[in-house]
Amino acid sequence: MLAPLIFAVPKGRILEEALPLLARAGVVPEAAFHDKSSRALSFATSRDDLRLIRVRAFDVATFVAHGAAQAGIVGSDVVEEFAYSDLYAPVDLGIGHCRLSVAEPAGQAAAAGHASHLRVASKYPNLTRRHFEQQGVQAEVVKLNGAMELAPGLGLASRIVDLVSSGRTLKDNGLVETRVILQVSARLIVNRAALKTDERVAALVERFRALANEVKAA
Amino acid sequence: MLAPLIFAVPKGRILEEALPLLARAGVVPEAAFHDKSSRALSFATSRDDLRLIRVRAFDVATFVAHGAAQAGIVGSDVVEEFAYSDLYAPVDLGIGHCRLSVAEPAGQAAAAGHASHLRVASKYPNLTRRHFEQQGVQAEVVKLNGAMELAPGLGLASRIVDLVSSGRTLKDNGLVETRVILQVSARLIVNRAALKTDERVAALVERFRALANEVKAA
Repeated sequence: MLAPLIFAVPKGRILEEALPLLARAGVVPEAAFHDKSSRALSFATSRDDLRLIRVRAFDVATFVAHGAAQAGIVGSDVVEEFAYSDLYAPVDLGIGHCRLSVAEPAGQAAAAGHASHLRVASKYPNLTRRHFEQQGVQAEVVKLNGAMELAPGLGLASRIVDLVSSGRTLKDNGLVETRVILQVSARLIVNRAALKTDERVAALVERFRALANEVKAA
Repeated sequence: MLAPLIFAVPKGRILEEALPLLARAGVVPEAAFHDKSSRALSFATSRDDLRLIRVRAFDVATFVAHGAAQAGIVGSDVVEEFAYSDLYAPVDLGIGHCRLSVAEPAGQAAAAGHASHLRVASKYPNLTRRHFEQQGVQAEVVKLNGAMELAPGLGLASRIVDLVSSGRTLKDNGLVETRVILQVSARLIVNRAALKTDERVAALVERFRALANEVKAA
């Protein structure tokens, strides 16, 4: 028997929308997957030859890029931030919509004028640098893992680059969205080598592509 | 009136032990701090001139190193990983004890012999590389943000470097601890410039030093 496929899903935001899609693809995790007190990291599913691992969003990309997982689901923000050559994102799943945006303190824009050098707090150093380079601005990125919204008020950075959904968190912290860098949605990602050598991976891609088309048509 | 001091505390492991110590230093956060449904990131305390921010452990160090927070509490693992020149860790608080260790699959050690090149999964790329360099081993570090214990079983790495407390998570995943890199405990950290220019920061250091000595004597 072949080794089971490893399918990586992210903790948090995208997972709730991804589970119904996985179920329609014939993948239903064992009950322990929903047990919040469990310390398990890897889960059996309704498919004998497929296990789920639940890891942080950035780690989904890392596991798949290195072939430790053959497939996974992750936001296009993560796919674009890493730009791993061995990671292929063939299907836009049409779920997990949000945007990666620049935000700054309300009222700052007019006061600051055009700066040639900025300090920007973000979880996405690569996308942030690339965005500001395209504007001809040299951005020093302060890498934070969360709570980006605190940075401008405490003088850590004059801008942040962060995921925005409703915009409420920004507003609560006196920030306004000034530019959308990337429209984000969740993608099916696969390891390129696994796609070439394991027909089960190619079958997953076809199945999710069909499901995504149904989602769009609905 | 002076701007309030910003004191950064980490989410998770250390916080439960840090709160009683903060209380003995005269710092008790407002009720909202304990409201898990709150989206607030910054909190008033019993001291008019001091606010708490609660952020990820790695970010505590980043806020303090840049002077966006003047002081904070964080594990020595984080202090050592970053080695920020503007961050000073004058007091070992004697809480949050654990260790940073190398672990590998049970039975692998004997089988593998001595390798000159390894792939190691860790949240601590700097400490990991430094440790293996000292052993004359070139370590390629795969940076993960969590779930390190999955890496060896899925072929992502032959070793992991991770925080170990009871060792139960390792055991559950078929791993054995083979080397302790660092004995970890929580530290009071301060921004060097703030320590020189704001006597309230120096007073915090003295207060926590006295408290730590009481903890040791108890």
